[in-house]
Amino acid sequence: MKNELGITVKKMENFSKWYDQVVTKAELADLRYNVKGFLVHKPLAVSAMKKMYYYFERELEKRGHKPVWFPAVIPESNFKKEAEHVAGFIPEVMWITHAGSKKLSERVALRPTSETAMYTMYAKWIRSWRDLPLKLYQSCQVWRYETKATRPFIRGREFYWIEAHDVFATRNEAEKQVIEDMKTTKAVMHEIFGIPFFQFQRPEWDKFPGAVHTYAADIIMPDGKILQQPSTHMLGQNFSKAFNIKFKNKNGQEEYAWQTCYGPAIWRIFAAIIAIHGDDKGLIFPWEIAPIQVVIIPIYKSQNKDLVLKRCVEIKDKLKGLEVYIDDRDEYTAGWKFNEWEMKGVPIRLEIGMKEVETNTVTIFRRDEGRKINVSDANISEYVEKVGKELSANLKRRAESFMSNMVRSAKNLKEVREALKKGGFVRVNFCSIDEDGRACAEKIKASLHADVRGKRIDVDEKPEGNCVVCGRKAKVVVYIGKSY
Amino acid sequence: MKNELGITVKKMENFSKWYDQVVTKAELADLRYNVKGFLVHKPLAVSAMKKMYYYFERELEKRGHKPVWFPAVIPESNFKKEAEHVAGFIPEVMWITHAGSKKLSERVALRPTSETAMYTMYAKWIRSWRDLPLKLYQSCQVWRYETKATRPFIRGREFYWIEAHDVFATRNEAEKQVIEDMKTTKAVMHEIFGIPFFQFQRPEWDKFPGAVHTYAADIIMPDGKILQQPSTHMLGQNFSKAFNIKFKNKNGQEEYAWQTCYGPAIWRIFAAIIAIHGDDKGLIFPWEIAPIQVVIIPIYKSQNKDLVLKRCVEIKDKLKGLEVYIDDRDEYTAGWKFNEWEMKGVPIRLEIGMKEVETNTVTIFRRDEGRKINVSDANISEYVEKVGKELSANLKRRAESFMSNMVRSAKNLKEVREALKKGGFVRVNFCSIDEDGRACAEKIKASLHADVRGKRIDVDEKPEGNCVVCGRKAKVVVYIGKSY
Repeated sequence: MKNELGITVKKMENFSKWYDQVVTKAELADLRYNVKGFLVHKPLAVSAMKKMYYYFERELEKRGHKPVWFPAVIPESNFKKEAEHVAGFIPEVMWITHAGSKKLSERVALRPTSETAMYTMYAKWIRSWRDLPLKLYQSCQVWRYETKATRPFIRGREFYWIEAHDVFATRNEAEKQVIEDMKTTKAVMHEIFGIPFFQFQRPEWDKFPGAVHTYAADIIMPDGKILQQPSTHMLGQNFSKAFNIKFKNKNGQEEYAWQTCYGPAIWRIFAAIIAIHGDDKGLIFPWEIAPIQVVIIPIYKSQNKDLVLKRCVEIKDKLKGLEVYIDDRDEYTAGWKFNEWEMKGVPIRLEIGMKEVETNTVTIFRRDEGRKINVSDANISEYVEKVGKELSANLKRRAESFMSNMVRSAKNLKEVREALKKGGFVRVNFCSIDEDGRACAEKIKASLHADVRGKRIDVDEKPEGNCVVCGRKAKVVVYIGKSY
Repeated sequence: MKNELGITVKKMENFSKWYDQVVTKAELADLRYNVKGFLVHKPLAVSAMKKMYYYFERELEKRGHKPVWFPAVIPESNFKKEAEHVAGFIPEVMWITHAGSKKLSERVALRPTSETAMYTMYAKWIRSWRDLPLKLYQSCQVWRYETKATRPFIRGREFYWIEAHDVFATRNEAEKQVIEDMKTTKAVMHEIFGIPFFQFQRPEWDKFPGAVHTYAADIIMPDGKILQQPSTHMLGQNFSKAFNIKFKNKNGQEEYAWQTCYGPAIWRIFAAIIAIHGDDKGLIFPWEIAPIQVVIIPIYKSQNKDLVLKRCVEIKDKLKGLEVYIDDRDEYTAGWKFNEWEMKGVPIRLEIGMKEVETNTVTIFRRDEGRKINVSDANISEYVEKVGKELSANLKRRAESFMSNMVRSAKNLKEVREALKKGGFVRVNFCSIDEDGRACAEKIKASLHADVRGKRIDVDEKPEGNCVVCGRKAKVVVYIGKSY
């Protein structure tokens, strides 16, 4: 790989351009498909996202969810049942009107989200308290004809996610589910993928259409802007009333059920992993989701080629159970290969040449630290695994440190304005995230082009003082940021 | 489960009704979704099909395929590029014409298969011989607005499959790929899922739209009718010429590439597994794809409940790595649970009561043989694994034996007619599967309502004698059957 083929901009200097270069040059996606806003996902991205699905699905199943597959199409009449929901989604819905040469009697929507598909069936399935709780999820795509600019893995007209839809007999159980969902996000996104976040209760004016409350994880991107990550919603009885989801309680009386839904958007979390962990050379995949965990580069002259390649295969055999690739392509130099696999984020590179063959050693290059070490090949398997885990822990630590440096407190609007220039979150006292706080949030939006992201739910914070906008006594501490 | 809730018809007496009952009563799918021909897939079916995907994907990746995700929508103009292909699919295409309230400038198809989506990109990706071979697959749904009657997992308007699309520099390599694809089908469908099949080259008049040759696996269903399974196609240069997929060869000259595509339809293979392995009590899942491999049923009176449940948990712990479920629901009797899990095809049931607790044993029930055996719990883990594998081997043996009994030879049309009454394949001498045999095949269709499925490619068979229809010298041995 010649230099101009690598990443040519620094991540912290021009994040936007860096991100686009990484997506294209590391071959995650091809944006040239001839329907606008639709991506072709290339093998590197698909392999990583398949692993991400695995970790989320494992966590959901551990917590009692079971998998389902619902149709990708939803009749228009289903959509109209919940007023706020239809209003929120219908501007972006793609409509199927014809099959073959025939017009359909009722047009059907390509699902933008599956509430209105699933809850018609939930109404048939749920009869008594014995059928509850019902906890189901599907891993699928959804389609939203976005009017905002699309961005690979961040906003698109087709994206990949998981949606979990749960039903309970009581409000209390539904509220516990919301907390469980937030724990699931933490257990996977933070603990395994190394992406720290704040968990917010969104203000009244920024809820999921049809929800009673929305809770969402937010991260800070390298450019200082906020990107929403998995959200979970307390739906209350809004949908159960609209879709007639009732159950007989233990006393034989009919009640409307309580519902929640949870949407870990694999696509967006992948964007976070690219953005947060990457560096000026390109991607760095955490060990757990790397499509290739270890690349072995043979270094040889023609007279010792066979010897070196044989050792490479021996080492690969010792690394059984890991994703290992021997890059023995003849048409590229070792240096070219180093650059390519660094750009593509392979956590560990092993270099094997005559020196290594003669001394029974392997030279290990660790992608995050960028330094080499020569070790005996006797315990290479344990050693590589240990280094892989250290790399993940290091990525997580770096991300946590970046995030904590991007949170600032402010006591008045002037301070908010100054803090926003540095990016990240600005922590302020605020009158209210209920309807009566909307006017203050709109002032912030209009004057500072920033959003009130809500009140943190992962820590308990008490306001001391007055609202940073209207000066009324503050009821909450909120976080403000410029968002994607 | 009361008796009337179980399967009420015998599989070999009324297969069609048996199949519908199993799909509904064992809770594989719900057919009541309010868009016709679209299924809701319930957890049992999804969990099993996810495992089936795993085995096929592993086999494809082992043979050099990499995963991609292509958009679900295809512009109408892409479709029109290959004449036979468009003619074959367009009657069933679902068209998206609007987004929100706006009409799209060009309507887009919901993919009925992905050739026309993928090959536009292949034309951009492939430049030189260095880019070949290109072997990519995607696991996805496709949508075909079928006009024939739909049937769960057999024919539907939305179904789940894998499609692999490969590109080569030479015809020879493409032909080798077709053989590799047939080996993949065998390695997974026959060896792991226990479903035997014949591999046919389809006659000229029964090819995939746009293909030069089509090769397909056929199975015999319990009612004696033939069901097509994975097919692989030699596309030749038909699509590369239509989509302009060219490469520079080692001499610097431009050539059109050679292509193949392969479609292991997970949905249909699942139908085969239900149909072939099931019995009068319901499903029997092979060990490898069972969503629950072992169900533990505690049998207790209230005074020894804790003791029995404790032992159940201990046994479950010993079975780490397997899919084990303790059915400790209080609202059902042990007998009810036995029937339910037998209907749902769980390979192994463990019964644990006071007798087992006191003697440090476990009672094992094996679903395929329907008999119980009491064993020491000391080596329960190895024992259960061994029994599970024996069950799979037994299912496979049974299926092979059923199939071999369903193949008959015939020397004239009268014998063909008689043999067809018994179901399965009728083996005959036939003039030709090229265009010049079409008239004879049409006669068979018209007079016997049966199809010429093609010439076997998994074994070499030489015809001796004359065509069973026209009496000309036979060029091939073909198999005739009534098909789904």
